[in-house]
Amino acid sequence: MFSHRMKLTIQFGDCDPAGIVYYPNYFRFFDNATAAMLTSAFGRNKRNWLTHYGIAGIPMVDTGARFLKPSTFGDSVDIQSEITELGRSSFSVQHRLLKGGELAIEAHEKRVWVVRDGETIRSAPLPDDVRQLLSA
Amino acid sequence: MFSHRMKLTIQFGDCDPAGIVYYPNYFRFFDNATAAMLTSAFGRNKRNWLTHYGIAGIPMVDTGARFLKPSTFGDSVDIQSEITELGRSSFSVQHRLLKGGELAIEAHEKRVWVVRDGETIRSAPLPDDVRQLLSA
Amino acid sequence: MFSHRMKLTIQFGDCDPAGIVYYPNYFRFFDNATAAMLTSAFGRNKRNWLTHYGIAGIPMVDTGARFLKPSTFGDSVDIQSEITELGRSSFSVQHRLLKGGELAIEAHEKRVWVVRDGETIRSAPLPDDVRQLLSA
Amino acid sequence: MFSHRMKLTIQFGDCDPAGIVYYPNYFRFFDNATAAMLTSAFGRNKRNWLTHYGIAGIPMVDTGARFLKPSTFGDSVDIQSEITELGRSSFSVQHRLLKGGELAIEAHEKRVWVVRDGETIRSAPLPDDVRQLLSA
Repeated sequence: MFSHRMKLTIQFGDCDPAGIVYYPNYFRFFDNATAAMLTSAFGRNKRNWLTHYGIAGIPMVDTGARFLKPSTFGDSVDIQSEITELGRSSFSVQHRLLKGGELAIEAHEKRVWVVRDGETIRSAPLPDDVRQLLSA
Repeated sequence: MFSHRMKLTIQFGDCDPAGIVYYPNYFRFFDNATAAMLTSAFGRNKRNWLTHYGIAGIPMVDTGARFLKPSTFGDSVDIQSEITELGRSSFSVQHRLLKGGELAIEAHEKRVWVVRDGETIRSAPLPDDVRQLLSA
Repeated sequence: MFSHRMKLTIQFGDCDPAGIVYYPNYFRFFDNATAAMLTSAFGRNKRNWLTHYGIAGIPMVDTGARFLKPSTFGDSVDIQSEITELGRSSFSVQHRLLKGGELAIEAHEKRVWVVRDGETIRSAPLPDDVRQLLSA
Repeated sequence: MFSHRMKLTIQFGDCDPAGIVYYPNYFRFFDNATAAMLTSAFGRNKRNWLTHYGIAGIPMVDTGARFLKPSTFGDSVDIQSEITELGRSSFSVQHRLLKGGELAIEAHEKRVWVVRDGETIRSAPLPDDVRQLLSA
């Protein structure tokens, strides 16, 4: 399935008084990694693929992470992301964050393809070309 | 085991362009909820219990969340937290975020009790009184 | 002019490796303080006053802050906010953050009343009742 | 005086329900830009220059920004930073954020060189080589 790699340097402001990354920020990094992966798969940036497919977003329905090694500011890390499952109107991603080549965090997420429906949002089937691009 | 409840009003800046809470912020809310629960259990605020017990923090080793209903700014939500397990040097927490009395998010986390060890941190056994207070 | 006070407890995750509040978070606190002040003035929460007045938001055009004393997690602070100027389509606010009754931060901001205009946003005159409520 | 340029792509999670960057995030970007500028000037990353100079940080004492044009996710922006003043134990920086070559934000900041002093922090004179490197 489709995969993507990106590098990231941890910033001072990403860290907490214990001197390590404040863990909610990892979910921000993983959200950015998923956006970058889809941007690569779809050949247009997130704003443009939201518009192109007429969707409101790809909200998270389930996510989790195991934190094996802490990172701190100045650390350069790699995030390897991969599509692991394609549902009717959802898809799953696995992220692996590596520090110095060693696995530091393993995370998974499941997201839904949603369209706006008045004041609220509702799931919609993945378009065929999305399914095809993400299977590649 | 020890449990805690808090109320929270979702802020504009907690939300993203889809108009709903940007999900990494929920982990910030849950981190605050765990800190509030321990503050209630220990009878001193987090800064003071870190100092009192001589620890560097309670870093996350494993967390996950299922998102059942989105929330937006202006929503008032309840977070119900409860200790679910006490290990030798770790403990687990379950959070339930309710909106209008209905379950919106279910999350769990496992944290380690760590002390500073030179440049790094290492786990340390939960003190007896901590174990007792969190079992209550 | 209209004024507002709120209390806030600094959280662990608001702080950086120096052990003090990561300053961008103060702007988040001040944004929440302005929203709370207008919520009090208008008698409805931000989501409802955005809808009621048909505006897209109140984006910042100019802000600044002087940081006199640092704060850390566990500190309870007061934010005193006050409308200082009402323009045709803008308004200014002063915030004073106090710790233990002493001034810790002094901040000012100028915001514009904007409506959506296709893909973009444009300023719109403050409605008469807004002007009246904020002058009180 | 020393100057630095960096590129940045605005992320979905940097933006708010109005669809534009939530302004406190700009201060995070500027904090990262100052760190990157000093990293370039000092030839070592922030963690290493904090250790090398034995300082606790470079906390903000005064900052301000004028927001001329909004940005949204997918926008690629440039941040041009420059040292504008060197005091005895402080220094000032100007940041200019450009979008498509046009000035979108103009910001300034004044920071202090601080060392740890027991439980608190106090200012310390800029070392000679820091003064020399930042004057270049």
